[in-house]
Parts: sequence; C-alpha cells; structure tokens
Amino acid sequence: MVDAARPGTAQNPGTGEIFQILRDGLARTKAELADLTGLARSTVASRVDGLLAAGLITPAGEAVSTGGRPPARVAFNPVAGLVLAVDLGATHSTVAVADLSGRILDSGTRPIDIADGPESLLDAILSDGARLLDGASISAPLVGVGIGVPGPVEHSTGRPTNPPIMPGWDRFDIPRYVQRRFDVPVLVDNDVNILALGEQVTAWPQVQDLIFVKVATGIGAGIISGGELQRGAQGSAGDMGHVQVPRASGSTRDPQDERDLEALASGFAIAGALRAAGIPADSSSDVADLVRAGNSAAIEATRQAGRDVGEVLATVVNLLNPSIIVLGGSIARAGEHLLAGVREVVYRRSIPLATQNLTIVQTQAGERAAVLGAAIMVARHVLSPANVDALVARGR
Amino acid sequence: MVDAARPGTAQNPGTGEIFQILRDGLARTKAELADLTGLARSTVASRVDGLLAAGLITPAGEAVSTGGRPPARVAFNPVAGLVLAVDLGATHSTVAVADLSGRILDSGTRPIDIADGPESLLDAILSDGARLLDGASISAPLVGVGIGVPGPVEHSTGRPTNPPIMPGWDRFDIPRYVQRRFDVPVLVDNDVNILALGEQVTAWPQVQDLIFVKVATGIGAGIISGGELQRGAQGSAGDMGHVQVPRASGSTRDPQDERDLEALASGFAIAGALRAAGIPADSSSDVADLVRAGNSAAIEATRQAGRDVGEVLATVVNLLNPSIIVLGGSIARAGEHLLAGVREVVYRRSIPLATQNLTIVQTQAGERAAVLGAAIMVARHVLSPANVDALVARGR
Repeated sequence: MVDAARPGTAQNPGTGEIFQILRDGLARTKAELADLTGLARSTVASRVDGLLAAGLITPAGEAVSTGGRPPARVAFNPVAGLVLAVDLGATHSTVAVADLSGRILDSGTRPIDIADGPESLLDAILSDGARLLDGASISAPLVGVGIGVPGPVEHSTGRPTNPPIMPGWDRFDIPRYVQRRFDVPVLVDNDVNILALGEQVTAWPQVQDLIFVKVATGIGAGIISGGELQRGAQGSAGDMGHVQVPRASGSTRDPQDERDLEALASGFAIAGALRAAGIPADSSSDVADLVRAGNSAAIEATRQAGRDVGEVLATVVNLLNPSIIVLGGSIARAGEHLLAGVREVVYRRSIPLATQNLTIVQTQAGERAAVLGAAIMVARHVLSPANVDALVARGR
Repeated sequence: MVDAARPGTAQNPGTGEIFQILRDGLARTKAELADLTGLARSTVASRVDGLLAAGLITPAGEAVSTGGRPPARVAFNPVAGLVLAVDLGATHSTVAVADLSGRILDSGTRPIDIADGPESLLDAILSDGARLLDGASISAPLVGVGIGVPGPVEHSTGRPTNPPIMPGWDRFDIPRYVQRRFDVPVLVDNDVNILALGEQVTAWPQVQDLIFVKVATGIGAGIISGGELQRGAQGSAGDMGHVQVPRASGSTRDPQDERDLEALASGFAIAGALRAAGIPADSSSDVADLVRAGNSAAIEATRQAGRDVGEVLATVVNLLNPSIIVLGGSIARAGEHLLAGVREVVYRRSIPLATQNLTIVQTQAGERAAVLGAAIMVARHVLSPANVDALVARGR
C-alpha cells in the first residue's frame, strides 16, 4: 500500500491538487485551474500534460472563446483504470470489475467454502477476476484490488487476525499473495466495513455518521463517524457480535445469563432456538425462509433478535450519535421483523437528543453493496493526491 | 464560525497551504516554499507578504548563502494572536489566555453556580478574560474564544441542548452573546470533549484512538477516533452516563434492576449509597475525600463504580477498538480504585484482539487539561487553511 504523503514530498507538486478539483467531473481550462489552485500557468500546463499522459484526465472540448483560439478543457477520465472488487463470504464469493468512479462493469459469483484456506480460494477468485478483466467493455490497466473478508483484518497490512470462521487465514498476507498475480495496491477490509461504505455511497452520500449492522450467520457493524470509516487501533472496531448482553425479555434473570450478542441474536442462534422448539432450521437462510413463509415462531424469534440487537445499538446511539442506522444481512432482509424489534428498543432506551433525528432502516444498496464498497475503497486510495502524484511520476 | 472552504474558493490561493507547511515551526526560505508547494515564485512571494503583514509568520534569520545575498527565512509566529479558553463547570469556572500554539500564558478560577444562568455568568467570566488579556505578557489581538460547558452542545451553533445541570442555558446562543463583547469566532463544546483533546495533546500526541472518561458528579466520555474528535450528528456523542447497565455484582438480578450508568457509578450516586449506609457524604468531592482518607466503604463503592463503568467500556472497546482509555474527574483522581475496577471488567469482557494492546490509565494532563483543550480547539479552527486565507484577505 502506498501511504498518503506529507505536504512537500510530492514529486510533481500540484498534480494531486489539480486532480482533486477535477474529480467532481466538471470540465475546466488550464487558466481556470491556475486560478483555482494559485499554481503558476507553466506549472499547471506541465501537471495537466502529466495527467493527460497518465490518462487520468481527458480532453473535454473547448470553452467559449473570448477572442482568438478557444481554450481547451480537460476533465476526469473515470475509465482510465479498472479496479477488481472482491466480496469473500463464508459460502460464496463475488468478484466485480469497476471503473475509477466505482461503477460496476461486470461481476460474477461462485460458491466457495472459506475453510478451504486462502491459496486455492484466492487462485480461483483471481482467475475469475482475470476473465472479467479480459472481457470488460473498457480496455484500461488494472490499478488496484479491494477485498472484503468475513472476519477482523489488520487494515494496514491486509492480514486477517484470529478470524473465527476462516480457518487457515490467520495472519495470511493476502496483499502479497494477490500481488504475485496482479502487481497493484491491494486493500483488505472486514466485509461489514465495505458494506457500510457501499450503503453510504449508494443511499446516503451526504450522511457523515452512519452505522451499518449486518445480521446474518454472525453479527457485525461498520462505523462511519465524522465522514470516515472507523477501524480502530487494530482494525477490530465494529465488533458488535461479542458485546455481552443480558437477555432483555426474560421474566427472571440469572447473573450468569449474559451472553455474546451473536449467541443470542445471530441467524445461527435463531436457527438453534427454533430447532430446540422442534422446528427444523439449520442455518440463517433457513430462518429467513421460515420468516418469509410466515412461520410465527421464526417471526417472533427474529423480532426478539431485533430487540437484543437494539439493546447494544441503544448504547451505540448514546456513544456515537449517528443519524442513520442501516440493518443488512439475510435476517434483516427477510422482512420488517428485525427492524421492528430494533426500533422498539432503541427509541425507548437511547437519550432523546440522539434519537430525535435518528433514522433506522433496512439496507437499500442491494446485493452488490459489498463489491461496490470494495471498489470505492480502492478508487479513493489510488486517486488520493499523493498516489496520483506517484502514478503520474511513474508514467513519465 | 467560518467553515472550511472547498478547494477553489480561497481568495488568495496557496496562502493556507504555505501556512500549513510552516506550522511545524521550522524556518524556510521562499524558494523552499515554492519547491514544496509547486506554487509560482511570484505567488509565494505575494502570499508570504500577506502572512507577514497579518503577523502569522515572522522573519527567522537567513539561510546559508550559495553566493550573493543570503535568502531570508520565515517561520510560524505563535504569538501573532491570543485565544481565550474557558472551562465552565457546575461550581467553578477557569479562564485562560493562550497563544496560537495552545501555550497557556495565564489563567484564573472563580467559584460560580451554573444555575445562575448564562448572561450574568458569561458577563463575569468575560470580564475575567478581559483582565487576563490586558495583563498578558504578549500583546497580540484576540483571534478566538473556546468554551467547554458541562452538558451536551450542538457544536455547529454553540448552543447547549437540554443540558440537565444547566437550567436556563437550553438553546442559549453562547457564541452570539460572547461576540457582543469579543467579535471573534467562538467555539463551544462539551467539557469532556475538550478534556479529551487536552489529554491527547499533553500525554498522547501520536495516539489516533483515545477515549477519555470523566467520572465526577456525572459521567461522560470524549471520543477521539481516527485522530478526530467525534461529536456525532447532533453533538451528543460520548454520552456514557445514560447508557443503561445491569448491576454486575448483584447476586440476584431483577429484570427492572437496570439503571443509567450515572445513577450507579457517578460521584453523586456513590455519595447517596454511602449516606444510605450511614456514612455522611453529600457530593463527589466528599467521596473523593473519604477515599483518600482510607474509608473502606468509600473505597469499595468506588471500585464497584469502576466495575460498572467497565461494563460500558467493555462495549466501547469492542465497538471502537481504542488504544488508550484515560480516566479523569474527581473520583478517578482520588486513587487507583476506580481504575482497578475498570481494568478488572474490561480486560475480562472485551475481545482479545481489542485488549491486547489496550492501555487504561488515569489522567496525566492535570488541572489545566480543559482550558488547554479549549485553546487547542480554537487554534486549530482559526489556523485552518480556509480561515488563514480569510484572515490574510481581511488584513489587506
């Protein structure tokens, strides 16, 4: 990974600054860019040439002439590069190819078993990615790979850290392995973090404080606070599943009756509770099917799971004062029951100032939110001022 | 308040950029600044003149000559402006005058009753501030005022929002009232937020993820995540006091036995529990005195309060993965007992990945952390690139 450079370490100072202005998509002349940045005209001309040579910007017609030859305009070229975005789940993986604006050009999904370990799985997934790149409607170089995995990740190194459902992946250097095949920056993150990014970009682009909660086989959260995804000191931020909660509904309560949220309210836990009541359910997708079919025990169990998730979210709301909470994952998508349980508890238990403008909704970003989030994560990284400067310098 | 401008809205583009480079305190020549920024030499000369005229930078001797007249160097001038920093508590207020680096030049404390309401109190406090400015060892214009108050604040407007212990202050426009006397930017924040900033700057300048918890008459937290103070959508982030917790130590537990953390573990609550046991204690400072005197009931109650605070912090640690938790406030400062209770619970209940590098300590910043934090908050604001540009433009 290339880190953001301090001011003054740029090889061609001003390149990144000019490019950030053009990223809004509007076309501008060199004179306009000089006015906007304060850079000398000669500097702007040189930097624009570099960005044109790197393909990151493109000629965009002419401005209206004020006499003499009309000045040429340039604009951001989102098809200058391609990104591979991977969403790695426990039982399936999706690979997408996207342009530099995060637009998904093509994608494919395959069944996997995450327990097969990193090497054979990554080989298969990267082959899928290579086929997508070969067949892409746009011909441009690959500039980065983004991968979401179902477990905690040390974001700075891209290594999973004690991931409970990923045997064989602990501390595996995913970026180095991927780079043997694709020698570009590789960013790895927890799947719920990329879902939060995808949801924000798709449905809530103006929102600075958003919590995305995934309730499926397990439970996790992606936290966007102050406009930034928060990963914490070791990258484990958002671990809601291991928060210990008392069971709120019980009429009697034993001091030992406190469990991880995941053990109470995940799809896995709900399936177990249904089996104990004589209803066949092996997995979170079985639970979702039963809920959709109107099974009253599954519906009540899902609503109670919502209340349990709400107990933890009530604390999250007091602590972080988000404006949006988004519920995703298979259990949330099975209907309004999880949502209803969450709302019931959060609006009753959190402080009024934090709930008066709080919206709690189901995910709106759909199936491709994860690969979209991974594509956005990589595009933001490779198009940061320092990295654009390095990209242009390398291209010369 | 002046908000950060988008690129391209600067009146003298490059001013802010040049100034940010110089804020590290090193002296540089105009040629060095041109190389570092990519700005034209003529632009740098003009912007440096503007910053010199505004006093924000100052001549700093000459560089070594490479033949001919040695080039002049310039450097950040932290005494170009003064800041008033106010820490408003329930029973006392501290006012300090600081320079633009946050260095406290002088300060004074007066007893107050926050329930006297905003107008008479602010009048008295601003008169104290005016006297400190008159007597300051540095003669420079006032450029901003920062105020910490003991309640939730809508940071964007500087208005307290339903502050429980500040009768008469709800929605009061503090910045407008202060600006009738001092016509400069006025920033208002919750007192625990400015304590968190003061603690970070003093003791943990490299730490990006720090939680400051104040346990005194009430309980609140200041959250620094990803290097930024997190205020949330309405400014109520960090409200730990109203998180509902089960009493962890009870041998039996009733489903109704769940209370706000503040009702269990604040200095006010501990004093009440001691009174119920026949020990005279009216306030959190009485509790602190009893603990210091070795009263075993007060010590055990304080340790239990630490365990209760730890219950909530265990969740905070899973969610935000901080590297440092700092305990402050009168109850934390009375000894190691609160700290011991917090550690006992957090290290047992939070996930291993989040606790393996977690440090939990008492405050090290001392009595002036609050005014230091308020001074830093204001200095960062007035010295942001957009505001420096505006400052220089106004000065011309």
